[in-house]
Amino acid sequence: MVRTVIGVMGSGHPLDHHARELAYRVGAMIADRGWALLTGGSATGVMDAASRGAHEAGGLVVGVLKSDSGAEASSFVDVAIRTGMGDARNVINVLSSDVVIALPGGAGTLSEVALALKAGKTVVAIGWEPGQSMRQASDGLLAYATTAEEAIAIVATAIAHHHH
Amino acid sequence: MVRTVIGVMGSGHPLDHHARELAYRVGAMIADRGWALLTGGSATGVMDAASRGAHEAGGLVVGVLKSDSGAEASSFVDVAIRTGMGDARNVINVLSSDVVIALPGGAGTLSEVALALKAGKTVVAIGWEPGQSMRQASDGLLAYATTAEEAIAIVATAIAHHHH
Amino acid sequence: MVRTVIGVMGSGHPLDHHARELAYRVGAMIADRGWALLTGGSATGVMDAASRGAHEAGGLVVGVLKSDSGAEASSFVDVAIRTGMGDARNVINVLSSDVVIALPGGAGTLSEVALALKAGKTVVAIGWEPGQSMRQASDGLLAYATTAEEAIAIVATAIAHHHH
Amino acid sequence: MVRTVIGVMGSGHPLDHHARELAYRVGAMIADRGWALLTGGSATGVMDAASRGAHEAGGLVVGVLKSDSGAEASSFVDVAIRTGMGDARNVINVLSSDVVIALPGGAGTLSEVALALKAGKTVVAIGWEPGQSMRQASDGLLAYATTAEEAIAIVATAIAHHHH
Repeated sequence: MVRTVIGVMGSGHPLDHHARELAYRVGAMIADRGWALLTGGSATGVMDAASRGAHEAGGLVVGVLKSDSGAEASSFVDVAIRTGMGDARNVINVLSSDVVIALPGGAGTLSEVALALKAGKTVVAIGWEPGQSMRQASDGLLAYATTAEEAIAIVATAIAHHHH
Repeated sequence: MVRTVIGVMGSGHPLDHHARELAYRVGAMIADRGWALLTGGSATGVMDAASRGAHEAGGLVVGVLKSDSGAEASSFVDVAIRTGMGDARNVINVLSSDVVIALPGGAGTLSEVALALKAGKTVVAIGWEPGQSMRQASDGLLAYATTAEEAIAIVATAIAHHHH
Repeated sequence: MVRTVIGVMGSGHPLDHHARELAYRVGAMIADRGWALLTGGSATGVMDAASRGAHEAGGLVVGVLKSDSGAEASSFVDVAIRTGMGDARNVINVLSSDVVIALPGGAGTLSEVALALKAGKTVVAIGWEPGQSMRQASDGLLAYATTAEEAIAIVATAIAHHHH
Repeated sequence: MVRTVIGVMGSGHPLDHHARELAYRVGAMIADRGWALLTGGSATGVMDAASRGAHEAGGLVVGVLKSDSGAEASSFVDVAIRTGMGDARNVINVLSSDVVIALPGGAGTLSEVALALKAGKTVVAIGWEPGQSMRQASDGLLAYATTAEEAIAIVATAIAHHHH
């Protein structure tokens, strides 16, 4: 049966200790709930830290990669989807996620938040604010959390609503 | 020789008189400069109004469409690129544009602004503010204009820098 | 660690008993080897039968779907990648597969065989012949098998070469 | 008004004199009919020769490129669609063409023939045979010509039927 997939987006750059810890814990908590984790698959930033968290908690990790070779993949990815499509894979990331969690990031992350809202997905931002324009465009789908626990609780509620 | 292409993004919903007029004038001024206009190609909102403006000024209009059939195309589109890829065509829109002009819009427009910044393109927002997160992510590539004339002047400067 | 993924392509139309059995056994043998199965994900034809085979053998089934909703997904898919890209997902299918097994099919299957060869992947055709043009274009990457066992043996050899 | 677009596919490798001349003449005859030419846009093989033919006959040339930079573009391309999607742009090539002309080529060309047939497009092969499997999959959409003139006549008939 098709598994519930939670997407985790965020910076692809090196993270400070706090951000890395947060991404790791989000990944771990997704795995603990029995959900699959989906990220952009790279061995960097939020993608790598969240994948490591889910992997070490025994979860399934899906990486939707920019390249056609998969050379950039995190070693914590179980299933590598090699798109060869660059940032167009951001669309696949959000469509394939039942709910999206967005950690702080740059333009790529903002594109994923916007594409997720466009696709009618609930987006949970942890510890940052995607901005007033995004909030106006969100149609009530953009939620805010300050901790991993709070984010996971919002995701659980969104999924429950989704299935009823 | 490959033509200079200016992308115009913005709301796909019905526009009020002022917004329609602005999009129309932007399209017309793009054509007047000898640039090709690129939009998402639909017969609605900013896409249709800008395409009409460029068409009536004798310009070339490229529409990069979501559908595989092209059924949604504006009648002012000359070249219809039928992608069958839904919002993934937003990536093609910004990659194929030398500079992007963003009129007010929703989540789709925000995704295009973010994707354009990610791709290193200059984005000119006319009459709105994509938000502080976008500005932080913009690496100096996000410019603001209040009129069509001002926007076109910024585009011309960006293209000149680009070619030198 | 990134798992080995074997793609199985073939007709999306209803299968006769023999073809269904073949696809089922190919899927089951992929799971038995510990490889993940990747298909186009639909609840029809080869995709459904192979997914069922892998699922019932305890394997992991990845479905790369045409739609953005996933409504067409086989109930034997574990991980649904919703692309919203129609046949452009055929490219993702072959790039994400380490080796491709092609059962008889129509134009979609032929496109996947051609795209896989283009991407430098080994393709194993079971019980059919993709044609002389495809063979000329194959650069030695197109192999033929008459049974599931024979195909799996070729796949195993190709993977072993790949990893050395 | 949306222009009629004829796609020309074929080898991306260097051509011998005869093949280059054929591609050039096909491009020129497309332009003479007032149709826009669409190719994969590269400065090599059939793409370049057909683009040159259309350009020198005063036609409009659309190139749908693999890269995100457009660096590979033929200098005879007027409108460069930069997809950044590699071979996934083959799908866009065929969807955006009203009819596809296929000159001899390799796996990429075969993928385009298959994708075009899948999309219900008429495909005219000049001077080669895509193979029996393709013919079986073609549902009557695959036509054969031995000269540029013959191919253009078939295209004209297909377009006329299409519009009625």
